[in-house]
Amino acid sequence: MNLPSKITICEVGLRDGLQNEKKILQTQEKLELANGIIAAGFKVIELGSFMNPKAVPQMADTDELFSALNQVDGVELRALIANKKGVERAINCGCRKVKLNVSASLGHNLANLNRTPEESVAGFEESVALAEQHGIKVSGSISMPFGSPWEGNISLESVKSIVEAYLNVGIDEISLSDASGMAVPDQVYSMCINMQECYPQVKWWLHFHNTRGMAMANILAAMQAGITQFDSSIAGLGGCPFVPGAAGNVSSEDVVHMMDEMGIETGIDIVRLIQLSGKVRQMVGHDTDSYILKAGRSKDLIR
Amino acid sequence: MNLPSKITICEVGLRDGLQNEKKILQTQEKLELANGIIAAGFKVIELGSFMNPKAVPQMADTDELFSALNQVDGVELRALIANKKGVERAINCGCRKVKLNVSASLGHNLANLNRTPEESVAGFEESVALAEQHGIKVSGSISMPFGSPWEGNISLESVKSIVEAYLNVGIDEISLSDASGMAVPDQVYSMCINMQECYPQVKWWLHFHNTRGMAMANILAAMQAGITQFDSSIAGLGGCPFVPGAAGNVSSEDVVHMMDEMGIETGIDIVRLIQLSGKVRQMVGHDTDSYILKAGRSKDLIR
Repeated sequence: MNLPSKITICEVGLRDGLQNEKKILQTQEKLELANGIIAAGFKVIELGSFMNPKAVPQMADTDELFSALNQVDGVELRALIANKKGVERAINCGCRKVKLNVSASLGHNLANLNRTPEESVAGFEESVALAEQHGIKVSGSISMPFGSPWEGNISLESVKSIVEAYLNVGIDEISLSDASGMAVPDQVYSMCINMQECYPQVKWWLHFHNTRGMAMANILAAMQAGITQFDSSIAGLGGCPFVPGAAGNVSSEDVVHMMDEMGIETGIDIVRLIQLSGKVRQMVGHDTDSYILKAGRSKDLIR
Repeated sequence: MNLPSKITICEVGLRDGLQNEKKILQTQEKLELANGIIAAGFKVIELGSFMNPKAVPQMADTDELFSALNQVDGVELRALIANKKGVERAINCGCRKVKLNVSASLGHNLANLNRTPEESVAGFEESVALAEQHGIKVSGSISMPFGSPWEGNISLESVKSIVEAYLNVGIDEISLSDASGMAVPDQVYSMCINMQECYPQVKWWLHFHNTRGMAMANILAAMQAGITQFDSSIAGLGGCPFVPGAAGNVSSEDVVHMMDEMGIETGIDIVRLIQLSGKVRQMVGHDTDSYILKAGRSKDLIR
């Protein structure tokens, strides 16, 4: 079984997790979480997003988080953005890395961003130009490349056209985001092989939700295809606004635990992560989809 | 990605699932479930166990279930047993297939069966002899081959010694049962490759619990190693008595759904299975670890 010796995990709970919570955490709580995540060893963290605060009130204080944390040596703090307005907010609060987003699904992009994928793509250039002027790095993400609850199958061509749009404006770090949990392992494997062959210059991230219980199998398949960068969310925070009651992002501690047990290095301290995950559950005030939080590690033997 | 075109799933919810429930279902409810499972297309079903009814009261009516269902054309109904007493009960109620069990973990076998693995193994011969006299088929299962919460690592040698004990009494259908959810994909792959090379005459079953969220990834790894027979449990019923609050067996509908989406044939009607799973949740009276029951199929698009 062909697996990497080391992977990088981006903790996205502060953004993709908390944006799905009804209860809005206080900025102080988020800072405590962010500092705990850094202390656990994460080197890439998605801290929040610069969306319209009326549409996503949970992320309204993202600017404050960046200002308060400022830069942390060796840690990349990134924010999700939809357009140039997001870059402007990044400039003002000292955020050094933003991630553009567009869905490969027309229905999803309309529901999420109120414009067509083509309209989103058309805005990439001005966002990147402004970011470059201020030394802000830009990556890109593509939602629903493996299937969409609106259209079902998504053509490989439509995914590739977005990859090429990103490359055209100089973005070569791209995330494939299965936000609806529709990806299956053989498809993930094929897509990752195909994308890496077609676009060897791209640094890929894979982002899985555990909506249909397949996230860990999909991570395994992606690793077998050579992918070494994954998003996950502490405590399994997150969800699908369009699949009410479904599970959220794959849980960071579940992913780190599986890697630990397979001898794949993540640089993350699983014990600290589990402790922090327990705090997160208290903060949000409900049970979350984390196996390790419930079962403990395989190494936690009966005494 | 090397995957089979077809797999066989044994539904174990009536045994491994219900034996973990505090509420004891009525025999009539179990029969309704069994008939629903047959109607959904399962060809192998673990109907119950012949253990001491004082120790496992949930399974006390297994004899009645076999008598009531009798034989169903093309469907194998099996029962778990620990020793010769189980064979005697099988004879009396018309059960045609039993599965012996022993743990590769000393601590687990002592806790579960109150004897050492060697003592369990020593009883295989008389059980098989009696079963053969009555034309009852016997398979075997090995618990904790991938690790045990009592001892941690389990040596490959101790697993192999049990395989050889089974082969010595003529049992060539063997299940590897990760009842503690400690298996990891690379280990599953290696173990399956190794076992098939050493014992090519054995028909292997793999049995995964989702205790630590890795069951679907482990099934993927086992399939890549050529395994095509898996246990799963409707609605994700089940658990670990020694890991309170942890998730149970991998859910049948989650497994069938993943196979459907990968084009791997199971012969099972996912729509009927999901309906039945919803009934199961009502019968046991609590939420269960089934992703598909919460999220629906990937094919259930937004209309």
